[in-house]
Amino acid sequence: MERKKKVAVIGGGSWATAIIKMLSDNEVEKDIFWWMRNKDAASYIREYHHNPNYLSAVEIKIPSDQITTKLSAVIKSCDLLILSIPAAFLKDALSTVSAELLQGKYIISAIKGIVPEENQIIGDYLQSRFDVPLDRIAVISGPCHAEEVSLEKLSYLTIASASPHTASVFSSMLNTRYIKTIQSDDIYGTEYGAVLKNIYAVASGICHGVGYGDNFQAVLISNAIREMARFLAKVHPINRDINESAYLGDLLVTAYSQFSRNRTFGNMIGKGYTVRSAQLEMNMVAEGYYASKCIHQINKTYQVDMPICRAVYAILYEKHSPHIEMRLLSEQLT
Amino acid sequence: MERKKKVAVIGGGSWATAIIKMLSDNEVEKDIFWWMRNKDAASYIREYHHNPNYLSAVEIKIPSDQITTKLSAVIKSCDLLILSIPAAFLKDALSTVSAELLQGKYIISAIKGIVPEENQIIGDYLQSRFDVPLDRIAVISGPCHAEEVSLEKLSYLTIASASPHTASVFSSMLNTRYIKTIQSDDIYGTEYGAVLKNIYAVASGICHGVGYGDNFQAVLISNAIREMARFLAKVHPINRDINESAYLGDLLVTAYSQFSRNRTFGNMIGKGYTVRSAQLEMNMVAEGYYASKCIHQINKTYQVDMPICRAVYAILYEKHSPHIEMRLLSEQLT
Repeated sequence: MERKKKVAVIGGGSWATAIIKMLSDNEVEKDIFWWMRNKDAASYIREYHHNPNYLSAVEIKIPSDQITTKLSAVIKSCDLLILSIPAAFLKDALSTVSAELLQGKYIISAIKGIVPEENQIIGDYLQSRFDVPLDRIAVISGPCHAEEVSLEKLSYLTIASASPHTASVFSSMLNTRYIKTIQSDDIYGTEYGAVLKNIYAVASGICHGVGYGDNFQAVLISNAIREMARFLAKVHPINRDINESAYLGDLLVTAYSQFSRNRTFGNMIGKGYTVRSAQLEMNMVAEGYYASKCIHQINKTYQVDMPICRAVYAILYEKHSPHIEMRLLSEQLT
Repeated sequence: MERKKKVAVIGGGSWATAIIKMLSDNEVEKDIFWWMRNKDAASYIREYHHNPNYLSAVEIKIPSDQITTKLSAVIKSCDLLILSIPAAFLKDALSTVSAELLQGKYIISAIKGIVPEENQIIGDYLQSRFDVPLDRIAVISGPCHAEEVSLEKLSYLTIASASPHTASVFSSMLNTRYIKTIQSDDIYGTEYGAVLKNIYAVASGICHGVGYGDNFQAVLISNAIREMARFLAKVHPINRDINESAYLGDLLVTAYSQFSRNRTFGNMIGKGYTVRSAQLEMNMVAEGYYASKCIHQINKTYQVDMPICRAVYAILYEKHSPHIEMRLLSEQLT
């Protein structure tokens, strides 16, 4: 008989909380561990079984002694790791972790972002920094807002890995009555697609903030998915249908949903907030902000025609006027 | 010197009103005529220069004596006709019109629908019923809600015709400061795409009414564009990018927008209204309702796998439960 698996969720945000819920509601027997940096939050959850900061309606059903702030210990004791930390903070969070500690682990990234400075997607970063073999790495992609998981609204997740075995290990632990999992072998396309969609959601928010309507929004998104297709075809040229849920679906939920923090951030920028004041007011990380800079750097190598990403970068990092930049962009859309 | 063109808009609804506004704001010199069935509305517009029933904020700038309820006279006097009547009423509206009367005219369809009983898209109907040559027919497609045209929000229209000349004739008359026109040669794909998107907008509304969230909605639409691609590839197999504005953009604006009557209609069905009571309450035609039946008939020939269209048909015409039908559909989505 196979030993009961031990799985750890690394991170204390809303997506991490949603994943804890999925793992708990999933029927495969397992021990679930949860690491977060915030000691107060961890104490609160141990005592009251709800996350005080995110998705606080969700009942946390895992034993209190499996909620911890000791990272090395929890990694050591688990076979499967689910990373759910904003990409911007990942390096810092893993600074005390060694390659040796990660040896033999299966790791899935629930992070939609790029490691700043390194300009690497999470899969690449885990390989190069910690020598984790590619076939033990997977990524989770939406379309899936954490808020709807807490409401048990039917949602679909794509689990992508170069190894079908690794994809199926995680897939079998995450599906529930309200979560359907789809397996994919396109780990690079799925990761980059998830990163790009955050930039497009920022663009969508900026356009809304500036005053463009639904008609324009639809043209923007139809151009965005073509831009994503061009970029993925250059970075990882395999045969993919860009209209599958993991690419187009993920873009749609982020660009159109009321829950999207990237869209909200963009909207504030479009209305005239500075980047700094929008970030302060939101008190949440808009991944698209960091992604914009990373993709700008990465695309210096690939030189793909990406007018939407370029416009967002110009607005966020070169202080161009959102009105003028979007007007110029509109001339290039078809 | 070329004679000043005479163009007639046939129909008195919101889209017809928006087109009148575009033609008036466009800089090409022309005489604009406007036919509508409703005598009271025509009198009102002649006197007050606003349509009392649709987009009533829009100022109608054409001379009062060019607003008429006499169809044959206006067709006779014009070179270019823009048809903007719900497809369900087109046969009836054109019942007194002869093939002879339409000889030599350029006709563009602003109708998103299929002629009931005939089960023909407008282009096919004009060819077979009135002997209008294909190269004198064009279609206008979105993404474009009339309501946003009235607000002068930047919007993109696709003008599709088998003849580049015909497309450019209409295109040159419709672009304005706030309307960009894109030309296409895919008249069949554009027409069928515009028909299908109304069915998908009904599906989207039904799902919302039943209680599905944004996560599911994104999966539904990502499946819908693939379903549309399959159907168009079978019906008119040319090389097209289904993610262009005329296909994906048009689907998005209809499925996600607050203005979409098809989505509103579907939402009521999902919430438990009967078809009849939803129609009475809305007092507007949801083209997707009729399109559902027509595509169901047409697809008996083509036999394309269309689970979303099938589900909508079962709910609207076979009185299947929206809850059960959408649950069954969810099992087939990827």
